[in-house]
Amino acid sequence: MNRFFSKLVQEIEPYVPGEQPKDKKYIKLNTNENPYPPSPKVLEAIKQVNDDLKLYPDPECSALRETAAEYYGLKKDQIFVGNGSDEVLAFCFPAFFMDKKLFFPDITYSFYPVYSKLFGVEYENKSLKGHFDIDIKDYLNRDGSILLPNPNAPTGKYLELDRIEEILKKNPNNVVVIDEAYVDFGGLSSVKLVDRYPNLLVIQTLSKSWSLAGLRVGFALGNEVLIDGLNRVKNSFNSYTLDALAQVGAKAALEDITYFNETKSKIIKTREQSVKALSKLCFDVLDSKANFIFASHKTIDAKDIFEKLKEKGILVRYFNKPKINQYLRISIGTDEEMEKLSIALKEIVE
Amino acid sequence: MNRFFSKLVQEIEPYVPGEQPKDKKYIKLNTNENPYPPSPKVLEAIKQVNDDLKLYPDPECSALRETAAEYYGLKKDQIFVGNGSDEVLAFCFPAFFMDKKLFFPDITYSFYPVYSKLFGVEYENKSLKGHFDIDIKDYLNRDGSILLPNPNAPTGKYLELDRIEEILKKNPNNVVVIDEAYVDFGGLSSVKLVDRYPNLLVIQTLSKSWSLAGLRVGFALGNEVLIDGLNRVKNSFNSYTLDALAQVGAKAALEDITYFNETKSKIIKTREQSVKALSKLCFDVLDSKANFIFASHKTIDAKDIFEKLKEKGILVRYFNKPKINQYLRISIGTDEEMEKLSIALKEIVE
Repeated sequence: MNRFFSKLVQEIEPYVPGEQPKDKKYIKLNTNENPYPPSPKVLEAIKQVNDDLKLYPDPECSALRETAAEYYGLKKDQIFVGNGSDEVLAFCFPAFFMDKKLFFPDITYSFYPVYSKLFGVEYENKSLKGHFDIDIKDYLNRDGSILLPNPNAPTGKYLELDRIEEILKKNPNNVVVIDEAYVDFGGLSSVKLVDRYPNLLVIQTLSKSWSLAGLRVGFALGNEVLIDGLNRVKNSFNSYTLDALAQVGAKAALEDITYFNETKSKIIKTREQSVKALSKLCFDVLDSKANFIFASHKTIDAKDIFEKLKEKGILVRYFNKPKINQYLRISIGTDEEMEKLSIALKEIVE
Repeated sequence: MNRFFSKLVQEIEPYVPGEQPKDKKYIKLNTNENPYPPSPKVLEAIKQVNDDLKLYPDPECSALRETAAEYYGLKKDQIFVGNGSDEVLAFCFPAFFMDKKLFFPDITYSFYPVYSKLFGVEYENKSLKGHFDIDIKDYLNRDGSILLPNPNAPTGKYLELDRIEEILKKNPNNVVVIDEAYVDFGGLSSVKLVDRYPNLLVIQTLSKSWSLAGLRVGFALGNEVLIDGLNRVKNSFNSYTLDALAQVGAKAALEDITYFNETKSKIIKTREQSVKALSKLCFDVLDSKANFIFASHKTIDAKDIFEKLKEKGILVRYFNKPKINQYLRISIGTDEEMEKLSIALKEIVE
């Protein structure tokens, strides 16, 4: 490529986030953002930040971690805070996944293979079975670490907690990371297993269910030893990855659980309505516990629908990849936005 | 250490930032923060951020980079933005420093060897010569990359631009990174050499001279090819490392150059007064072009002075390391704070 690049930087294939075109105003159903604004208390808290911005932020995010400990029912030392769950996931690779093989599904969050390449972690993909199902037998008694999103992305499919627990029991010497970016939309969190399984690390984010994608805050929840491992990596990379504003904003969000529950419920309700509407239009829609649905039309090409929706001012996500290139991932917007989607889809498929 | 840690995470030795004790109110002269608040326009801009926090921030920081391009007199594609200059430095290691040796001074920012360990980069320290001087002969015609802070930390000593230029000329195939965290306090930036040397990458931060340590914004300035290398690493690690608030706050800061010049001048003036005051108290003070001074008392032990100052409510930085264990690094505060420091030092040394 050029004489200044390392071999690694020539070989890596960076992650490509969903498009954010600025040519016109779209209905954005392509990056799993929350259609509702964050709790008003978040903006209030941010506005209180003053001239102290001249000082370094708390590198340990102590106040935020105390609030998070209360919310999750954990001890403060069982909580790690990072710059979005993407950064938290990235830190897991040098902390736990090197020297061993890493197992994750073949259809999943497409950032996982990118991290693997960046940190030189060897991985093995396990194929989804049946109708995009994770088969836990693929993850029992492994000779390496395990990384599973629950619900999975982009399918939205959820694995019951007894299944997660079996994986944990059958891998006592392997770190098992459960990426719960979407768990609040109908799944149960495995965070309740943290005290019983020292090999469990749960990852959550404020970007989806807390309407704070713009704030960049993610958590890892697990045994103190695993949290210490993440801190060792973070403190070898950047002492302060959360600015002072993100810390107070995130704290305020976690303190307003009423608001959180309201918006979360609205999205779940809208999702169920959308599943019905799309089914009527001859879409096969996977059972989703996320703030998106994964849907394939019985006769019409997914890429065609994707492009026609874009022309009509509606963005959804299309992955041109084997096994899923006849599906669209559609984020759940407001009732009004999803109504507009239904109308547009009706025009396209009929 | 334990069965879950990688070999790497067991071996790394994380960076330890300056202490931020909360037992009482200190005069903080230990982490090179700016004693003056940021431009009022920064807080105004942050308060304008609204419900759009529910959306992902611009992963390319376009608006901020446009303003930075104007400020630095560069093209937008010659600018990379990261979560503090620490993150920007970290990304340089996988992007440019692997596969080769890296050369940097033995006495310098103590994060450099930490990054090297994290990314498995082999490095060679070059000893400072004379009275803590970088000898550019150590960095000519090398068979590896070069990383130099200018001014150096914790010495504050500055290398003239013709010296930097000679290093660039004599290393046409090596990336030369100049870490200019402190350059605004009296040095000239090598950013004016960017268009002539494709091997030059300049790193700056808003944490010191722009009074925004709490916001986490740093820049890399260089040839488009080097900027692309950093983007490739960033996009393999975390697509969005700057939240929406940091992006607008940083932009507002760079638009208020008048305020920036005023506070910068005040600090330089206070520094020169402080050098005189400490010299009178029999300190040997290195010639500094930074917002700190590096000083050693002619007879009294540095660690003793450090501890006695702390008892008196004044924090400075002491490094218990060979060659510099008789020095204190003292950040430049307000005139009033430095006056209190002088009084305290007088009581200690007389």
